[in-house]
Amino acid sequence: MKKVIIDCDPGHDDAIALLLAAKAEDIELIGVTTVAGNSELHNTTRNARKILDYAGYTNIDVHAGCDRPMMRDLFRLTGAIIHGEDGLGGPSIPAPTTPIKEEHAVDYLIRTLRSSQESIILIVTGPMTNIAVALQKAPDIKDKIDKIIMMGGAVIEPGNITSAAEFNIFVDPEAAKIVINSGCELYLVSLDVSMKAVFFEEDIEKLRAQGDKISTIVASLLDFFADTHVKHFGFKACPIHDALCVGYLIDESLLEFKKTFVDISLHDPLTLGETVADLWEITGNQPNCHIALKVDREKFVSMICDHMKIDCR
Amino acid sequence: MKKVIIDCDPGHDDAIALLLAAKAEDIELIGVTTVAGNSELHNTTRNARKILDYAGYTNIDVHAGCDRPMMRDLFRLTGAIIHGEDGLGGPSIPAPTTPIKEEHAVDYLIRTLRSSQESIILIVTGPMTNIAVALQKAPDIKDKIDKIIMMGGAVIEPGNITSAAEFNIFVDPEAAKIVINSGCELYLVSLDVSMKAVFFEEDIEKLRAQGDKISTIVASLLDFFADTHVKHFGFKACPIHDALCVGYLIDESLLEFKKTFVDISLHDPLTLGETVADLWEITGNQPNCHIALKVDREKFVSMICDHMKIDCR
Amino acid sequence: MKKVIIDCDPGHDDAIALLLAAKAEDIELIGVTTVAGNSELHNTTRNARKILDYAGYTNIDVHAGCDRPMMRDLFRLTGAIIHGEDGLGGPSIPAPTTPIKEEHAVDYLIRTLRSSQESIILIVTGPMTNIAVALQKAPDIKDKIDKIIMMGGAVIEPGNITSAAEFNIFVDPEAAKIVINSGCELYLVSLDVSMKAVFFEEDIEKLRAQGDKISTIVASLLDFFADTHVKHFGFKACPIHDALCVGYLIDESLLEFKKTFVDISLHDPLTLGETVADLWEITGNQPNCHIALKVDREKFVSMICDHMKIDCR
Amino acid sequence: MKKVIIDCDPGHDDAIALLLAAKAEDIELIGVTTVAGNSELHNTTRNARKILDYAGYTNIDVHAGCDRPMMRDLFRLTGAIIHGEDGLGGPSIPAPTTPIKEEHAVDYLIRTLRSSQESIILIVTGPMTNIAVALQKAPDIKDKIDKIIMMGGAVIEPGNITSAAEFNIFVDPEAAKIVINSGCELYLVSLDVSMKAVFFEEDIEKLRAQGDKISTIVASLLDFFADTHVKHFGFKACPIHDALCVGYLIDESLLEFKKTFVDISLHDPLTLGETVADLWEITGNQPNCHIALKVDREKFVSMICDHMKIDCR
Ligand SMILES: [Ca+2]
Ligand SMILES: [Ca+2]
Ligand SMILES: [Ca+2]
Ligand SMILES: [Ca+2]
Repeated sequence: MKKVIIDCDPGHDDAIALLLAAKAEDIELIGVTTVAGNSELHNTTRNARKILDYAGYTNIDVHAGCDRPMMRDLFRLTGAIIHGEDGLGGPSIPAPTTPIKEEHAVDYLIRTLRSSQESIILIVTGPMTNIAVALQKAPDIKDKIDKIIMMGGAVIEPGNITSAAEFNIFVDPEAAKIVINSGCELYLVSLDVSMKAVFFEEDIEKLRAQGDKISTIVASLLDFFADTHVKHFGFKACPIHDALCVGYLIDESLLEFKKTFVDISLHDPLTLGETVADLWEITGNQPNCHIALKVDREKFVSMICDHMKIDCR
Repeated sequence: MKKVIIDCDPGHDDAIALLLAAKAEDIELIGVTTVAGNSELHNTTRNARKILDYAGYTNIDVHAGCDRPMMRDLFRLTGAIIHGEDGLGGPSIPAPTTPIKEEHAVDYLIRTLRSSQESIILIVTGPMTNIAVALQKAPDIKDKIDKIIMMGGAVIEPGNITSAAEFNIFVDPEAAKIVINSGCELYLVSLDVSMKAVFFEEDIEKLRAQGDKISTIVASLLDFFADTHVKHFGFKACPIHDALCVGYLIDESLLEFKKTFVDISLHDPLTLGETVADLWEITGNQPNCHIALKVDREKFVSMICDHMKIDCR
Repeated sequence: MKKVIIDCDPGHDDAIALLLAAKAEDIELIGVTTVAGNSELHNTTRNARKILDYAGYTNIDVHAGCDRPMMRDLFRLTGAIIHGEDGLGGPSIPAPTTPIKEEHAVDYLIRTLRSSQESIILIVTGPMTNIAVALQKAPDIKDKIDKIIMMGGAVIEPGNITSAAEFNIFVDPEAAKIVINSGCELYLVSLDVSMKAVFFEEDIEKLRAQGDKISTIVASLLDFFADTHVKHFGFKACPIHDALCVGYLIDESLLEFKKTFVDISLHDPLTLGETVADLWEITGNQPNCHIALKVDREKFVSMICDHMKIDCR
Repeated sequence: MKKVIIDCDPGHDDAIALLLAAKAEDIELIGVTTVAGNSELHNTTRNARKILDYAGYTNIDVHAGCDRPMMRDLFRLTGAIIHGEDGLGGPSIPAPTTPIKEEHAVDYLIRTLRSSQESIILIVTGPMTNIAVALQKAPDIKDKIDKIIMMGGAVIEPGNITSAAEFNIFVDPEAAKIVINSGCELYLVSLDVSMKAVFFEEDIEKLRAQGDKISTIVASLLDFFADTHVKHFGFKACPIHDALCVGYLIDESLLEFKKTFVDISLHDPLTLGETVADLWEITGNQPNCHIALKVDREKFVSMICDHMKIDCR
C-alpha cells in the first residue's frame, strides 16, 4: 500500500482526485490537508470534508492549513470563475457532518511525517503554501517524504492565467519555489498533460450512465466544470488536472516524465509563477524536477470511470 | 508593389528570406539593413551582401547597423551552434564584390522612411536593435511604417533558449520592448508557427532536384541548418523561420493571426526575452500585436520551391 | 511591566540587547527565540543561552527557531567577518548549562501569544524568519502583538552589504516583506540611527571601568566587535544596533520616529533587501512603518553603562 | 582650454550650469544638446537657447535630441513641481531669437566627436538618453570622450523621488545603465554632494546684490527654485545640482571623488533608477565610476557668484 497525504483546495478536480485516491486499491489515503486556492480556506476545507463524507469516507481526517499565500493576497478571479463562488459549484451535496480536525495542516504534516516509520507520498493539488511552511519550519521532514507529485505549472503549453503562468503556482509562487528547491523528489503534473487528459461530453455521459451515486455526482460536477471552461476558455472539453497526480500513482504508464531543471519566475510581474524549464540543457543547471510530457487520455478516462463506481472501502 | 526593407542577421533563414523577397513579384525590396545577432555584425553584413550578390541582386543596397544589443553583450552561444561560426555555414559561396553602403542602417532607415511618399513595410528577421534605435531617435518615422512583420518570440510553443525565450528577442529584449510599445502595426511570426513550417528531408531533396543555381545553394544551406538542428535540438526537420515573414506578404493565407496584448519579460533572468500574451484576456490591456497561430506548411514549402527557381529580376 | 519576547541571532549586539532587556526594570522578558543570521542556528541559540546563563538569567527560556531563511541560503559572509565564526567572538564565556527548550520558536510564539491575556511586544534583532512563519501559520496572533520593534534596514544611511541593503533584511528579505505587510504596528530601528549610536573607545573604557562582571564581559565583547568593524568598514566606532530596540522601550525619548510607507526590494539582485521609504510622499501609499530618524547617543551610552551594572533580578 | 559639450534639460540648475561653463576662462563650450527631462524637449531646448541668448552667447549652438526616455514615458511629476510648467519658471526672460540647429543632438554628438582632433569632455545634466543612443549607434566615439561628468544618482543620501532614486536617472534608467557600462571615464555628481552645495537665502541675496544683469536673473531663478523646494521637500536651502559638474572642471578641489563599482537598479519598480555602489567592496566587481563624496560649499557659492558677474566673452 502506498501511504499518501493529499494537500488540496477543492475545487472540482481536487474533489475527483480525493475520490480516486480513496477508492484506489493500492493507496492508503492517511489524511487530507487543505489550503486557500480555488476558493477561501473555509470553503476548500468544507468541500474536502463534504465530498469525503458524501462518499462515505468519514474515517479520513481533514486538516485545514494556511488561509493565504505566503506573500500575496489570494488571487480570487479565476478560481471563482471556474469553480463557482464556494469552490465546488454544480450539484447540491449535503453539508459535511464529520468535524474538521483541530490540528493545523502544517503541524499535522510535520507530526505525521516525523512519526511515520515508512516514507509518505505527498500529492499536492493546490497552491504549495502548506508544504512550503512545513518544510521551512521542519526541514528534517524531507527525509520522510517519498516524493511530491504536484499539479502545477505549464512548461510547453501556455498558462491559464497568461501565456506564462498556471493557477496553482501563480497563486503562491514563493511557496512553489521553496518546494522546487527543497531537494525532495518532485513530479510536476502540468497543463502540458492535464489539458490533454480531458473528458469530452461523451466521456461524461458514459460516467453518468454508470448510474451509481458517486459516478452520478462526479458527472454533475463535470457538467458544471465543463460549462465554466467553455465560458472562460472557449474549450468544449473538461480537464481533471488534479486527479492525474493520483492516477499516476495507480498506474505509472499513465504519464511520461522527463527530468530537467525547472525554476519559478518570481521577479517579473509579467511572468510571475511561470515554470521555466531548461529544455535544451543550455543553463548548465542540474535537473531537479520530473516534468510530465505525455499522457494516455483513454486510460485516464477509463481509470476515472472504473474507480468512481467502486464501493467505499 | 509592396515596398519593403528587410532588417536581418543572416543566418540561413534570413538568407532565404532575402532571396524570397528579392524574387517575389509583388515585392519591391528597396534595401537591406543588418544587425548583430546570429553572428557578429561584420559577418551578418557580409552574409547579406554575399547571398544577394550570388543571386545577382547587386542593385539592392545593404547597410550595416548596430554591432551590439542595446544593454547586453551579444549572446553568441546558440547563434554559432546553429548557423556556424560565420553565421552562414555550409556551402561555399563566393565573397561579395558589391560594396556595403557607408550610411549606418539607422540613418538609412530614418532617411528612407522620411523621404518616401508611400509607407514602407519593415520585415525584421534579427534582433530589433536597429528599429528600436531608429524609433528612439526619430519617433516620427512611425507614420511612414506601414507595418512591421517580425520573426521572434514564442507564445505557446516553448522558446529555443529556455522554455521561455526565443533567440531574436532574447538577444535584445529591450529593443524588442521598444518596438512592441512603439504603436506600429505589428505582426509577430513566432516559433509557434515557424516550428511547424519545417522542411523535411524530402522537401530539401525536392528543392535540390529543381537543379537551378539558387535552388541548389538553398538546398545546401538547408542541409547544414537541418544538421545543426538535429545536433542541438534533436529535431530532424528544418524550420525556415525568417522566410515566413516574407511568405505572409506574398500570400496572406499562409498564416493566421490573432490580435492580443503582448509584452516582453525584462525583469527576471529566468524569463528574459519571453513574449507573454494575454491569451485569456484577463489583464484588461488593449491588444497591441498580431500573433501568428497557424501556418500552412505545404503552401510554404511550395512557395519556397517555386520562388527559388525564378530568374533574378 | 512591558511583556517582551526577543527574537534574535546573537551576535554581539543581540547579546547586549538581551542583557539590557533582562536588567530593565520596566521590562518582563518572558522568552527568547533564536534564528539563523549572524551565525548558524545552533550557534545563535547557544549564544543566547550562554549570555543569559552567564548573567544569571537561567529562568528565561530560549527556543530555537528556523535554521534558514525562507527562500535563500544563509548569507554567511559578513556575519562571520563581523561576529566571528561562532557568532560571539571575543571573551571566553562558559558553555551554557540550562537546556534549550524543545518547543520550536514558531510554536512557542504562536502558543504564547494566543494564551496571553495582554498583548506582547516583539523585539526582533535578527532576520525576520520566525516572525514571518508564525504570522503565515497563525495570522490571528497579530491581534496579540502590541508592536514589533525590529532592527533592520537603512533608509537614508547606506546599507552595510551594498549601498542598498542592511544585513538583517538582506538575509531574509521575503520574511521581512511578510512582516512589513502584516498590518502589525512596526518600529524600524535602522542603520540610520544605529550607525550614530556608537560606542567610542572611551565609552568602552568607561563601561569596563565599572568593574562588575557584566560590564567587564560586555566591554570585552565590544573590543572584539569594534575591532572587526575597523577591519571591515574602516570605522573606529562600535555600533550596538540591536540594543537600541530595547533602549527605546526603556526610554522613548531615545529615538525619534516618523511614520511613512516602507517596502522591501525583492526583485532586483542589486537592491535585494533594501528598505525603500516614500520620504517625499509621492507614491500615494499609506504609511505602514515608523522609521527611526534620530537618536540620542549620549543617552544610549549612559543607558547601557547604567544597566549593565544592575544586579541580576 | 577644456573642450566641453553640455547635454542638458534646463531646468534652473542646468541654466546656471550653462552660464557657468560659458563664462569660465578655461572652458570652451563648443555646443549644447538638449533632452526631455525636467520638461518636454521643446521646452528644455527653448530654455537652453533662451538663457544663452539672454546672456549674449548666441555663438553657442543648441541641438535638440531625444524627446523621450528609451523605454518609458517621461515622468512629468516632479520636473513640473520643481521647475514649473515650462521647465524654467520664475523671471520672465525674452524668447530666444537664435535658431535651434537642425541636426539632431545624437548626430551632432557623433559627428563632432568623430571629427575632433582632441578628446572632448561631456557634461550631462539631464537624463542620459542622448548619450546612450549615440554610444549605441556609434560605439567608436568612446575613444574621443575624455570623460563624462554627469549629475545623477544618490549613493548615500536618499533619492529625491523615493528614498532610492534620483530624478535624472529615474527618468531614463536604461540610458543611465548604457552609459555606466560604456567603459567611458565617469564622474558621478550625485545628490550626496549636490544636496550639500546649497544656496541659502543670504547667498541668493549676495548674488543679487552684485547688481549686474546675469547675477540678477540668476538670483531670480534661484528665488523660484528655492520656493518650490520649500513646498515640495520642506527645505529652505536651494541646491544647484547641475552647476557642480561644471564647477569641478573649473576647480577640481571643489569635489572629492572615490572610485567604486556602481550599477543602476532596473528590475524592481521600488528601486528603479537607484545608483547602487559597492561601498564595502564585497561584490568583487571592478570599480567603474568615480562617485562624489565631499563638496566645498563655500567655494561653490563663491564660484557661482564670481562667474555670474563676468562679462560675456
Ligand atoms: Ca486544485
Ligand atoms: Ca534571423
Ligand atoms: Ca542581530
Ligand atoms: Ca538637469
